Amino acid sequence: MAPDELGAFCPLYHRAVEIIGRRWTGAIVRALLSGLTRFSEIAAAIPGISDRLLSERLKELEAEDIVERCVTPATPVRVDYRLTEKGRALVDVVEALSAWAARWIAPATTASARP
Amino acid sequence: MAPDELGAFCPLYHRAVEIIGRRWTGAIVRALLSGLTRFSEIAAAIPGISDRLLSERLKELEAEDIVERCVTPATPVRVDYRLTEKGRALVDVVEALSAWAARWIAPATTASARP
Repeated sequence: MAPDELGAFCPLYHRAVEIIGRRWTGAIVRALLSGLTRFSEIAAAIPGISDRLLSERLKELEAEDIVERCVTPATPVRVDYRLTEKGRALVDVVEALSAWAARWIAPATTASARP
Repeated sequence: MAPDELGAFCPLYHRAVEIIGRRWTGAIVRALLSGLTRFSEIAAAIPGISDRLLSERLKELEAEDIVERCVTPATPVRVDYRLTEKGRALVDVVEALSAWAARWIAPATTASARP
């Protein structure tokens, strides 16, 4: 697809940006793509995210059918978060963003926090 | 890059999601990639964006060196917004997101607005 084949606006694309662009969501999807499945592992992998926000974002991603919550009966109960097929399909987006970031974002600028 | 080659967290990627994921920014970059350059054209192409927000987002994108504001002396002065090389490099991200959205976002869900 050449740049001039992109329409100026596409509501599906706009919705996709809204889903993935929500604060922390991009980082959570990347953590899940890297193979993490436990709440505590994901929380530990993302500096600065609170348990409350991680829980909220995971619920949103479940509602979007991007993440599934798998409960294994045991003592204690084991809970894993896994990407659905729809979620795993985001790998191309995460890779494109990662490649762009590696090429164009200067490490120093990552210190600036979003208000 | 296979999914398991993605680290669980990358601050550069996180920053990139923050830049592109800010509300309307993804839509503005897409509009610019499609060839629009005038403020009024971009505003007309993005349903729901206010002039104030479009102006704010364009300034942010200028500050990130993703957009350049080109002023042509004339009467009246002509102003065009163009993607820089860094901005044009986002075409892979926009295409990956567009492809994912086309495959996975149901048209009906686009009616739901973000609060």
